[in-house]
Amino acid sequence: MDKLQPLEKAVAAHLIDGKFIARQIRDELRADVTELATRGVVPGLGVLLVGNHPASRSYVTAKEKACAEIGMLSREINLPETATPREIVQAVETLNAASDIHGILVQLPLPDSSIEQEVLQTVDPGKDVDGFHPVNVGRMVLGLPAYWPCTPHGILQMLKRSSIPVAGAHVVVIGRSNIVGRPLSILLSMKHVLGNATVTLCHTGSRDIAKLTRQADIVIAAAGRPHTLTADMVRPGAAVIDVGVNRVEDPTRERGYRLIGDADFDDLLPIASAITPVPGGVGPMTIAMLLHNTVQAARRLTNNEAKG
Amino acid sequence: MDKLQPLEKAVAAHLIDGKFIARQIRDELRADVTELATRGVVPGLGVLLVGNHPASRSYVTAKEKACAEIGMLSREINLPETATPREIVQAVETLNAASDIHGILVQLPLPDSSIEQEVLQTVDPGKDVDGFHPVNVGRMVLGLPAYWPCTPHGILQMLKRSSIPVAGAHVVVIGRSNIVGRPLSILLSMKHVLGNATVTLCHTGSRDIAKLTRQADIVIAAAGRPHTLTADMVRPGAAVIDVGVNRVEDPTRERGYRLIGDADFDDLLPIASAITPVPGGVGPMTIAMLLHNTVQAARRLTNNEAKG
Repeated sequence: MDKLQPLEKAVAAHLIDGKFIARQIRDELRADVTELATRGVVPGLGVLLVGNHPASRSYVTAKEKACAEIGMLSREINLPETATPREIVQAVETLNAASDIHGILVQLPLPDSSIEQEVLQTVDPGKDVDGFHPVNVGRMVLGLPAYWPCTPHGILQMLKRSSIPVAGAHVVVIGRSNIVGRPLSILLSMKHVLGNATVTLCHTGSRDIAKLTRQADIVIAAAGRPHTLTADMVRPGAAVIDVGVNRVEDPTRERGYRLIGDADFDDLLPIASAITPVPGGVGPMTIAMLLHNTVQAARRLTNNEAKG
Repeated sequence: MDKLQPLEKAVAAHLIDGKFIARQIRDELRADVTELATRGVVPGLGVLLVGNHPASRSYVTAKEKACAEIGMLSREINLPETATPREIVQAVETLNAASDIHGILVQLPLPDSSIEQEVLQTVDPGKDVDGFHPVNVGRMVLGLPAYWPCTPHGILQMLKRSSIPVAGAHVVVIGRSNIVGRPLSILLSMKHVLGNATVTLCHTGSRDIAKLTRQADIVIAAAGRPHTLTADMVRPGAAVIDVGVNRVEDPTRERGYRLIGDADFDDLLPIASAITPVPGGVGPMTIAMLLHNTVQAARRLTNNEAKG
């Protein structure tokens, strides 16, 4: 019991509260939505869900609920798991053509993951609020106006709003996925107010990752594998962002599992200057930035119409 | 004089001969061009030059000469320096529409650099053999088939053909330009036969670059500034790739200047396991890969027509 007291203190000092920061962003967006309403515009998110996998279903529901809470419209197309590629593409085209839909989200994974690239490339780049279309990725890399992918952008916002210095910092990212590690490493090292860091990108082909992470001011674990980041891999005082969401069996829970990140949270808490929990860390930020991109899309469309 | 002997030996052992490797690639491409000719296809490069700046003129001439040498077609549109943005865009559209032109090169910088992005985005992505169009950049980042930008691709080929191991190596890249450092850092860290390295990208916002370069197996200097990489910054036995081409005054030369790289070549030669000279290192590779992309474009178009 003696040891519990300082640990609780540490938690209070160290924890990066993703739920809180996401709520802060949603509050700002609510003000934007209210302002747009005075111009007769309601930002609309179109959601395409194929099949009804429980995890995908619950993500989609969370996103729709988040839209409603800040006064945005959402419209869902839910196709059966047996939908043909043609039907899926047509559903995207329907959302592309809908004038009250400003952003489109295709919930991944699709039952047939081999058609994902084709489907994603069907999304109108101007409505690609997930930032997955090659045009958006390219524009982001070149520093042109673009929709930044939601999870990487959410992490940049977390760091900024937690007053963790990024400019000039050495950031080590573990994981090179197209939706997190790769775009995050790019955005962090670009010259803008949320970036300008020196970034090292590690992955399954890397040797001696620990040697690199131990030098980092910020370590970001985005490998999708528990225990990717252990306590011996982090310099005391470094900040840790944990992007992983891994299910591990837990018979003490009613549902039979619990969620853990890629980092050994309990061991890192006394070492890191700041750390995100899982759940309640990066996760809520992703939805907040999806709303952000959709509001941005609505505003841009409105401005273009005013110009046109 | 005593010291000259070992230094000359070192040169022989260390030097990565870009001219030689580029010639090797051009010889391979000549065979491809001959094969395509049997199917009635001559790969064609369209070149747009605005104005007649001596450096740009000489680059364009070198590229056209390289085309001719391997049996490729090249066609130049040379607009006056006073050409309007509309005229420049129309010239690109002419090349887009030309059925005997498979690849398009807009020689940069344009006299008015503020219109470069607009002009580059006018290039048909299927003919964008420089790999500068956002669609190509995005496709490259996502690991989809794409034209890789010529200088980064040339460097990957140099490393491979010099038997310098890249997979698993720690590569430190200095410079984050859209045409070299940024795409190079991405390509090096992707999972393919020329990549899979652990990459750190340094730039003008980085602190203590020397600490990072001293840990690298391969250091790539692409900052565009002489003396960016000094001898104390490189671990003995590391490989050095020098992308810089800088003019420095030299009254002993007839033209009044000489070209030097970003690395202190003479000081690094005894330290590095391998190093590229300037000129004669990376430079010739860029043209070779431009030809490579154009041959690839011609082949792809031909295959598509055969399918259609």
